Amino acid sequence: MVLGHRATTSAEFSLDDLSGATGRLDILLRCITSSFHLSHGIRTDVETHLILQGPPNPPRTLRFVGSELKYLNPDERSTAALVRNALSAKNEGETKASPGVYISSRSYPDVISLLAKNSQIYYLKEDGHDMRKMPSFEQDATFVLGDDRDLTPEEEEILSQYNPLKASLGKKSLHADHCIVIVNNELDRRCEP
Amino acid sequence: MVLGHRATTSAEFSLDDLSGATGRLDILLRCITSSFHLSHGIRTDVETHLILQGPPNPPRTLRFVGSELKYLNPDERSTAALVRNALSAKNEGETKASPGVYISSRSYPDVISLLAKNSQIYYLKEDGHDMRKMPSFEQDATFVLGDDRDLTPEEEEILSQYNPLKASLGKKSLHADHCIVIVNNELDRRCEP
Repeated sequence: MVLGHRATTSAEFSLDDLSGATGRLDILLRCITSSFHLSHGIRTDVETHLILQGPPNPPRTLRFVGSELKYLNPDERSTAALVRNALSAKNEGETKASPGVYISSRSYPDVISLLAKNSQIYYLKEDGHDMRKMPSFEQDATFVLGDDRDLTPEEEEILSQYNPLKASLGKKSLHADHCIVIVNNELDRRCEP
Repeated sequence: MVLGHRATTSAEFSLDDLSGATGRLDILLRCITSSFHLSHGIRTDVETHLILQGPPNPPRTLRFVGSELKYLNPDERSTAALVRNALSAKNEGETKASPGVYISSRSYPDVISLLAKNSQIYYLKEDGHDMRKMPSFEQDATFVLGDDRDLTPEEEEILSQYNPLKASLGKKSLHADHCIVIVNNELDRRCEP
């Protein structure tokens, strides 16, 4: 799950200025690429939630489901087109915008409470426990990240209700999409014979 | 070093179709982002070479120098603009196109022979030795990757003259830019106290 603190909730954005006028939606687009793309296919065992909290209609939550995804290419522009299409969908409850892409008005507290029912929550922080040394995951794992801004104290407070484990990937502060690459690699390695 | 087997060597490409009409230059752009970007700055100890081998004027080599880089943003489009600007430079020998971005007509054999003088060459392959278990690097390290295509037998043959160590990041085949993220993380961790 990635929190887009000011990511646009309007479909009225230009594909030619993704990093300028979208509340840094570009960061979330790269998170989708790093969540799902392998050289020869899509990770079918991954789900990623983007929580868009910017104007004009927050919150909007996009849920990407690897086992259903189609039309996802690795470049930012085409992923932005998928997101824009989803944001233009009229929705009550959760609506399927395209194969594997769902949109709803769920808020961050709604989504984290749903995810915590069936997965262990991990909070990625530089000062957490070294992820490489953490015990193997015995259930599904949800990783919570901010965009280019850390979680606010209020968001951390909500997260703390779900017994998150603080996990670190190293001492350097990395872009959210790069964190996802490293998490996927760590999980891959744990599944290798 | 990333080999762009058919990446355009013309500045006449549109920023609106980076994954379509550029010979997959988009892959190389993402490699630049993953080579250099930290959350709060640029990796000043990294250099990345992109070897563009597509029409109409191959080869062109772009050398990005972290300690000098300016104007590098993490989105594909703005990185593409830097590359396009460099490709439009007239050059004899190696020319500085913008701060930290150099362009030349060096070929892959030229570049690998230069790099091998001062660094150990690593070839990233799924069936190589686990990078996590490799001994610490006692000199600069150069990692060689293909774009969405593996190195050709001829390119591998050239590489083999420089005693490359085959290094693996895991069994799954990953995008080149994701490989760079993982390599940077491994090197970061080795430098941590």
